[in-house]
Amino acid sequence: MSQRPFNFSAGPAALPEEVLQQVAAEMLNWQGSGMSVMEMSHRGAEFTSIAEASERDLRDLLQVPSNFHILFMQGGGLAENAIVPMNLSRGGKVDVVVSGSWSKKSAQEARRYADVSVAADGAAGRYTSLPPVGSWQLRKDAAYVHLCSNETIDGVEFHELPDLKALGCDAPLVIDCSSHQLSRPIDWSRVGLAFGGAQKNIGPAGLTLVFVREDLIGHAMSICPSAFDFKTVAEAKSMYNTPPTFGIYVAGLVFKWLKAFSYAGKTGLAAIEQRNIDKAQLLYAALDASPLFENRVATDCRSRMNVPFYLRGAFNTDTLTQAFLTGAKERQLLQLKGHKSVGGMRASIYNAMPLEGVQALVAYLKDFETQYG
Amino acid sequence: MSQRPFNFSAGPAALPEEVLQQVAAEMLNWQGSGMSVMEMSHRGAEFTSIAEASERDLRDLLQVPSNFHILFMQGGGLAENAIVPMNLSRGGKVDVVVSGSWSKKSAQEARRYADVSVAADGAAGRYTSLPPVGSWQLRKDAAYVHLCSNETIDGVEFHELPDLKALGCDAPLVIDCSSHQLSRPIDWSRVGLAFGGAQKNIGPAGLTLVFVREDLIGHAMSICPSAFDFKTVAEAKSMYNTPPTFGIYVAGLVFKWLKAFSYAGKTGLAAIEQRNIDKAQLLYAALDASPLFENRVATDCRSRMNVPFYLRGAFNTDTLTQAFLTGAKERQLLQLKGHKSVGGMRASIYNAMPLEGVQALVAYLKDFETQYG
Repeated sequence: MSQRPFNFSAGPAALPEEVLQQVAAEMLNWQGSGMSVMEMSHRGAEFTSIAEASERDLRDLLQVPSNFHILFMQGGGLAENAIVPMNLSRGGKVDVVVSGSWSKKSAQEARRYADVSVAADGAAGRYTSLPPVGSWQLRKDAAYVHLCSNETIDGVEFHELPDLKALGCDAPLVIDCSSHQLSRPIDWSRVGLAFGGAQKNIGPAGLTLVFVREDLIGHAMSICPSAFDFKTVAEAKSMYNTPPTFGIYVAGLVFKWLKAFSYAGKTGLAAIEQRNIDKAQLLYAALDASPLFENRVATDCRSRMNVPFYLRGAFNTDTLTQAFLTGAKERQLLQLKGHKSVGGMRASIYNAMPLEGVQALVAYLKDFETQYG
Repeated sequence: MSQRPFNFSAGPAALPEEVLQQVAAEMLNWQGSGMSVMEMSHRGAEFTSIAEASERDLRDLLQVPSNFHILFMQGGGLAENAIVPMNLSRGGKVDVVVSGSWSKKSAQEARRYADVSVAADGAAGRYTSLPPVGSWQLRKDAAYVHLCSNETIDGVEFHELPDLKALGCDAPLVIDCSSHQLSRPIDWSRVGLAFGGAQKNIGPAGLTLVFVREDLIGHAMSICPSAFDFKTVAEAKSMYNTPPTFGIYVAGLVFKWLKAFSYAGKTGLAAIEQRNIDKAQLLYAALDASPLFENRVATDCRSRMNVPFYLRGAFNTDTLTQAFLTGAKERQLLQLKGHKSVGGMRASIYNAMPLEGVQALVAYLKDFETQYG
């Protein structure tokens, strides 16, 4: 087939072409079973083997320590905003670092269950930089500290997770890593729980991954639904309620694709991280050098995954933004529209986006500059 | 391709072959969009059109009145066991009719949020019959009455929903219809809310359907997660959190398949209901006439969807049960093992199961009788 368009959606987002081809090929008959994966009992031998392989490959890719459970859940990041405090807060104190739209929502939702304090807030800088770690107001007796390690809408990323212990805080760190999970390693020594929706780097919407240190489970509030009690889910190996089986299968294929991925002499997660770095550098360099376009995020915390950008100054009109988006689609550069809350454009360049996709976008930026600049 | 095996899984369950073929064909490029449905933003024009068509066709098939919202949610029936009382109970009283494993779980989970009373319980008869409506102990001030209109494990089905008003009860009726939704019409005049996981008659696991009368939303308890507040979900047209987009797409194809379905001179839901009646009659008649096999459910409430059966008396050994299951698989009759809590066998004969599948099962029953009877 001819080259597929480049899809810059923030999520649900592009998946590796090889994975989609395998999903299509196996749709009516998975490996001689006579069944589609969608048609398998989640308790049967076939699906059990699929789920176990998915978990094993994910654990391997991210080097998840053995004292962390990996849970396949439902509801996405927004549901976890409630599920995490129901499981971890014990109705006590929760400190949240607000670095953009998502962590703001997390703080708001946690208020239903806990005494929430905003430890720091990047609002004054319109979320174009991260609140300096030294400025965070952390409470000694917080049940946990929450942050969003990559803000999908604002394009702000933690390139290093804070060492809470070094800040004199013994509370576990919870990270919402929805939009950059599996794009880089996670320093598990600094994390107690990590969660994320699958629909960015991993697979179809409707699957949520939760990585939780074993000492943090078993403390759910009585009002926590059984289906969302980490202990119940962990003990049933994510089969307490019927899991999103097809999503787990697609994710498993993505994990296999990633393990075999090679780039710049590296393989696996190191390879995809290097390509993500190269893609991001290429795009940010083009925006910084442009007379017409700009990214407004501080250079030390620009996201490798989500790059919001705008037309500069007087060029920033709805008409010209629309002209850009229309021209992009004609060039097979899809879903570049910015989030409705901030407008402009956004290029999400997740794992499945090849370098050629970013090169094509950069070429279009330059052509657009020539035409309108 | 040659004939596919017949898949009797209780869920996730068989899907129409034509639907799987279309899903495979569109996997890399949905209708010229250049994207898989899994890769589309849920807010884009393409997916919006898919979701709107799914809802419209479902509303049409089930003749859902305009004062009912249709919500596409996540978490399955088990999550709804918590979500429904969080939304409807106002912390007050909930009456539950226990007719099997699922309604028992629903009663237990609702106790987290409400004063739950078991209005009737079929336990004494080991859930082989329905507690007579006249015997139900309903409280005048119950916030709602819950029942499971088809018990997947026990194989017991309400062939008529109770008229609570005629019983002097003004509370709305909530039905868990997971395992028979879309197999027959629903009498909406007797229902306030209906919910069900999609993984039986509709599509992949991970999608949950909720039909709720508009006056019943807007009363969620403060501890209800935003993502599961029916009002929030309804106002956002099921897009408050990222919905399980691929599941909505597959469900939409199933709805279209069902609208075009014809059988015995009928079309659509009436046609599938007739075929379901014919399939169930064929299988129950074979079991009732068998010297070797039996179904233990009272004839007036046998499920058209889930048919648990056992070897009779002295024949009922693990060895012979296993021999039956092994022989079934050799004949391409898949996933006939009974639920782990009750053992034996179970044939789930949902909408996608053709008449030929039940005929093949009946032929095997007879051959097995000849060999072992």
